[in-house]
Amino acid sequence: MSRVAYVNGVYMPLASAAVSVLDRGFQFADSIYEVWAVRGGRMFDADAHMARLRRSLSELRIDFAMSDAALYSVLRETQRRNRVTDGIVYIQISRGAAPRDHVFPAANVRPTTIVTAKNLDRAAIARREAQGIKVITLPEARWARCDIKSVNLLPNVLARQQAKEKGAFEAWFVDANGFVTEGTSSNAFIVDAEGRIRTPALSNQILHGVTRAALIEIARERQMKLVERPFTVDEVKTAREAFISAASNPAVSVIAIDDVPIGEGRPGPVAQALRAFYLGVES
Amino acid sequence: MSRVAYVNGVYMPLASAAVSVLDRGFQFADSIYEVWAVRGGRMFDADAHMARLRRSLSELRIDFAMSDAALYSVLRETQRRNRVTDGIVYIQISRGAAPRDHVFPAANVRPTTIVTAKNLDRAAIARREAQGIKVITLPEARWARCDIKSVNLLPNVLARQQAKEKGAFEAWFVDANGFVTEGTSSNAFIVDAEGRIRTPALSNQILHGVTRAALIEIARERQMKLVERPFTVDEVKTAREAFISAASNPAVSVIAIDDVPIGEGRPGPVAQALRAFYLGVES
Repeated sequence: MSRVAYVNGVYMPLASAAVSVLDRGFQFADSIYEVWAVRGGRMFDADAHMARLRRSLSELRIDFAMSDAALYSVLRETQRRNRVTDGIVYIQISRGAAPRDHVFPAANVRPTTIVTAKNLDRAAIARREAQGIKVITLPEARWARCDIKSVNLLPNVLARQQAKEKGAFEAWFVDANGFVTEGTSSNAFIVDAEGRIRTPALSNQILHGVTRAALIEIARERQMKLVERPFTVDEVKTAREAFISAASNPAVSVIAIDDVPIGEGRPGPVAQALRAFYLGVES
Repeated sequence: MSRVAYVNGVYMPLASAAVSVLDRGFQFADSIYEVWAVRGGRMFDADAHMARLRRSLSELRIDFAMSDAALYSVLRETQRRNRVTDGIVYIQISRGAAPRDHVFPAANVRPTTIVTAKNLDRAAIARREAQGIKVITLPEARWARCDIKSVNLLPNVLARQQAKEKGAFEAWFVDANGFVTEGTSSNAFIVDAEGRIRTPALSNQILHGVTRAALIEIARERQMKLVERPFTVDEVKTAREAFISAASNPAVSVIAIDDVPIGEGRPGPVAQALRAFYLGVES
């Protein structure tokens, strides 16, 4: 089956889906995106992702005219045409195509909207969940507004590639004060030496993860000890557990950081419980 | 005359020039660019821009196969087809189009190469040179590798838009120590209270400006006092002069910073002399 993309109102083969070379997403990273995980045919946390999409657009002052209802129709139609049952729906909205100039273009330049969808490798996800993943640490190198889900992602790309070359799945950024901020495409959690779940509080330094928020809510509802407080790399190394959260990787255990095993060096019970609750509650 | 773009080996109307929605330049800002100023039909500092292009590619490990000679042919042909006598030639090279994944794609994914060219508004340039420009200051918000000329430019876009809305042409970023790093698309200089030309030394914090280097060489050849040392916003306010450098704006005077006049509030003799030398020497 060939994949289908939605581009500015038109469904077309993904292979021929294109944007202008003058698109500000291409020339300036002047573009935001959002990803919904699909499991059993259903988009998870749909409204929370939609709310974050609106926030990203608002922060960048991209004047996007489609209603939520119209957008959901497109997301679901793209999902349907690509027969996605377990995978993701991806949307990217740029400020549009205009003669190259850093300043915003004229008001008649309309945003570019792209929607794609694909099934993910369920075996690979199951393997990560069963075996856990490794992370490396790198100095924080990103811009000051990582709370905006923009495509200003070059440092994330470079960090993720370094992780792969060191046999790890993810890289965690460490800020100038020695605290872990988050991963290249996931939020960071530990279960500290006292058994508390810890994750950095929301700030401009991290993405306001939808799955992060869902896991926090689950932990609180179940009276699990949780504090939104940052942690150092040393605290990760002495933690009972560590895990990441992302739409496609909810509460996946981190079993080693910079090649130092965490806890017993295998997926821990807190991450497994949170993931089970999340998938169970939501599915 | 309709404009022409070069896209991966083919010249086509700019209006239909496009890249895949899966291009990593569009989805990840995983792309570099370079700009040559053209005056009187000639590309200025051509080899220095080419060297920087190669450095940017190397830093991102983008495996770009074209020789300098082949690339110059494309740059000049694009210039010719667009009849550019006084303007710019722009090249952008991304890591190519591939299924979305932060890590680098398979080795058989070829980079995407785009070349465009256009004449610039000579009257606007002459006006900036004659009248000077205003700058605002903003906290440094960009990533840690501004020495790479990448399209990871969203903070630059937002800063430049803020400048425009405050009646300024450029925004200067100020780092955590209170020092000016550079502008959104230009390097920063002052002539300090002692009459020395000052500009921050090269680092990962700033673009290694080709025009910056050319102006420094001119100043040294002419025994003008110059130190590569950073300066604070307060030092700008008490400076004799300030100016920016960029391929299209070589030594353009800054006459006010955050609405505080600099020196006598009009273009100063050092910037004017450097620009005259630069344009005279080079043209």
